[in-house]
Amino acid sequence: MKQTKITLEENEIPERWYNIVADMPNKPLPPLNPATKEPIGPEALAPLFPMALIEQEVSAERWIQIPDEVRDIYTLWRPTPMYRAHGLEKALDTPAHIYYKYEGVSPAGSHKPNTAVPQAYYNKQEGVKRITTETGAGQWGSALSFACQLFDVGCEVYMVRISYDQKPYRKLMMNTWGAEVIASPSERTEAGRKILSEDPESPGSLGIAISEAVERAASDDETKYSLGSVLNHVLTHQTIIGQEAIKQMEKAGELPDVVIAPFGGGSNFAGLSFPFLRLNLAEGKDIKCLAVEPTSCPKLTRGVFRYDFGDAIGMTPLLPMYTLGHNFVPAKIHAGGLRYHGAGALVSQLLHDNLIEAEAVDQIESFEAGVLFARSEGIIPAPEANHGIASAIREAQRAKEEGKKKVILFNLCGHGHFDMSAYEAYFAGKLHRHELSQQDVEDAISKIDTPEIPATAP
Amino acid sequence: MKQTKITLEENEIPERWYNIVADMPNKPLPPLNPATKEPIGPEALAPLFPMALIEQEVSAERWIQIPDEVRDIYTLWRPTPMYRAHGLEKALDTPAHIYYKYEGVSPAGSHKPNTAVPQAYYNKQEGVKRITTETGAGQWGSALSFACQLFDVGCEVYMVRISYDQKPYRKLMMNTWGAEVIASPSERTEAGRKILSEDPESPGSLGIAISEAVERAASDDETKYSLGSVLNHVLTHQTIIGQEAIKQMEKAGELPDVVIAPFGGGSNFAGLSFPFLRLNLAEGKDIKCLAVEPTSCPKLTRGVFRYDFGDAIGMTPLLPMYTLGHNFVPAKIHAGGLRYHGAGALVSQLLHDNLIEAEAVDQIESFEAGVLFARSEGIIPAPEANHGIASAIREAQRAKEEGKKKVILFNLCGHGHFDMSAYEAYFAGKLHRHELSQQDVEDAISKIDTPEIPATAP
Repeated sequence: MKQTKITLEENEIPERWYNIVADMPNKPLPPLNPATKEPIGPEALAPLFPMALIEQEVSAERWIQIPDEVRDIYTLWRPTPMYRAHGLEKALDTPAHIYYKYEGVSPAGSHKPNTAVPQAYYNKQEGVKRITTETGAGQWGSALSFACQLFDVGCEVYMVRISYDQKPYRKLMMNTWGAEVIASPSERTEAGRKILSEDPESPGSLGIAISEAVERAASDDETKYSLGSVLNHVLTHQTIIGQEAIKQMEKAGELPDVVIAPFGGGSNFAGLSFPFLRLNLAEGKDIKCLAVEPTSCPKLTRGVFRYDFGDAIGMTPLLPMYTLGHNFVPAKIHAGGLRYHGAGALVSQLLHDNLIEAEAVDQIESFEAGVLFARSEGIIPAPEANHGIASAIREAQRAKEEGKKKVILFNLCGHGHFDMSAYEAYFAGKLHRHELSQQDVEDAISKIDTPEIPATAP
Repeated sequence: MKQTKITLEENEIPERWYNIVADMPNKPLPPLNPATKEPIGPEALAPLFPMALIEQEVSAERWIQIPDEVRDIYTLWRPTPMYRAHGLEKALDTPAHIYYKYEGVSPAGSHKPNTAVPQAYYNKQEGVKRITTETGAGQWGSALSFACQLFDVGCEVYMVRISYDQKPYRKLMMNTWGAEVIASPSERTEAGRKILSEDPESPGSLGIAISEAVERAASDDETKYSLGSVLNHVLTHQTIIGQEAIKQMEKAGELPDVVIAPFGGGSNFAGLSFPFLRLNLAEGKDIKCLAVEPTSCPKLTRGVFRYDFGDAIGMTPLLPMYTLGHNFVPAKIHAGGLRYHGAGALVSQLLHDNLIEAEAVDQIESFEAGVLFARSEGIIPAPEANHGIASAIREAQRAKEEGKKKVILFNLCGHGHFDMSAYEAYFAGKLHRHELSQQDVEDAISKIDTPEIPATAP
């Protein structure tokens, strides 16, 4: 009988998160205060985050101990299985060996709880009563609702009004876990009231929802704010994915030639690839680490490396990132998790130093890949995950053309049970490729008015 | 660190299905020809099912070998994990040890693929080109679509019109796996055209959908029909659940005092409980096997044991079953999979012989249980699964009252990702208990005009 799943025991859940900063040849540049353009210290983040997470955000320690209480919760779905994609290999008639790590087995259905759980834990430890956040498509809001419920911390999710109306099942999932979900813009905040006074029918945006969530956290000592990607500590939490994957590849008796993950703000990609990248940096391995972004939002492949705001309206510190500009509005593709204008500081520095690679896949190619995957492997993937599958298929087809074996590993970051309307649009021929023209990219970049990276930086 | 999941390796997937007929003290009575009232032979089923499944349907062999090709597909999600419900135990403050077997990890999200896969396999082996079936809520149609896709067999699903309109995500899931989904009644069959000519706006029913699917299979040599519960071979396929569970309980170092599963037609309950029942029948153990039905459709607890049709309109052979009458129309509870008027022949005989027990849970108690479960264990259960959880909670609360340890195992047969509107109705206070009055039950039973079980039967 063929082996399909390579599994681990619960006592093989990693005991530490891996912080790649320790191994980076060039460390990420510091965030800047937008007013003074000077580097900000950890204390500037204290109104929004608990101290333990701020310490992780600025840490240069290679390994960060995972609290027992967090590992206990991780056992609800971790270690996640790694699959050998026998069905997909057969469908592609490729000599490549294709593996995928499946993060959709978490209760929230994606990799997001890997960081939501420790974030809820550290907030609880420091006496926080309520965590606020924003959510667009709903993956992150679901994960944080789940995590807060388990630690008995309140959860207040500002959900972009148009998603709130179009994705009632996501909202209900959050309610089932006890979260309060508020359509944004709302009457609950100054920011929301201002928008509503100008446009009572506003469909909302992620930028507005962030403003509301941050305002609530900043104005109440017992309330903090939480982010699902981009920041260093978030990426670090996700490295349990790649650490497990290394053990599983060892059990399979192979080392990947290429490691692939979809790219939104960086947490999905970092989660799988950073532990493999450590093998390159510390042990001289030569594993290609490939981030896959949508052609509609190509910050890694076509953006510029400079300081920019993390949010759309310019409330955050300035972060060093590959960006299309914080005002860039990407097309409304179904992979909502990949519609972010910039890349986190860690990934951006690594790309700048040519230690990782990136490519872009258009929406139709991504859904072709997802449907082929569902029909050969069974699991129906999330639209975000389809981007990683598409690149894995490209690699496998090249292996076939070259007539040589290649070992491919990708992150199947979530299932598509709440995204079936995207598949409906695909089957109805209603999806677009959304390739940006050169002019589109130049226009976006020309509007960026935030500081450049100093010429003296490495 | 606490152990949460008890897992098995792929080579521990059972090699045989368990056929309880071999161990039953009184064998199930034979099905009757409705016209002659004489027992029918296997040949009567040949237009609808492949020979290999008919042989299993009438087999008295204790063990039936699982083909390697089926076990290969099972590795896509099996062995399924068994969980120790630490969070639920804590929420209930009970001395009971609660375990659950989680079947929602299958690509279709329920236990149904356990039989859909071998059914598709045997049809493929016998050269069948297309399988038809009916589906109401969509669980079974999804599972068969998934299985047919993997064996490259066509799949034609007649989906009750009102579900087709109200549950577009389920339909899209089937389409993603390549199935053709037809709203029933349809223009494609004599049965459908007849209904539509009388009522062009007919919302359909499971009875009509069965008629359409059966008519298509009966009128085409290359097309067969498939059922997702009730029949002996279907229940036998599901016994891989209980066989795995026995190994997992052994690893946990405990034997359950009570084994619980929701009850619709019997496949969910049989799947978990029959292998444990074998320990009672063959090894003298005393494990309580408890089937949980909705109070709105109480055939096991309040129905009568007699011959009845398997379908609503009287096309099937007469089967010996606990029934409320094939014309009984249960309330439209959200647990669509439990709205079946009768119980399969194997389960009915076992209940008649007092070898298993049954109880009923109302809709509101079931959702209270499901929400408590989601908030303490993370997974959001299917409405059907909530019935098993409710009974497990009752058992755990009795253990607390009695101040003694009890080991409880239940089948968490699926997740609720496609049923969030049921949770919405629960949160909005729109659910009803749907308890039948004594008069309701008497009225239903008085309408049954099918033959009684002979007084000479054991």
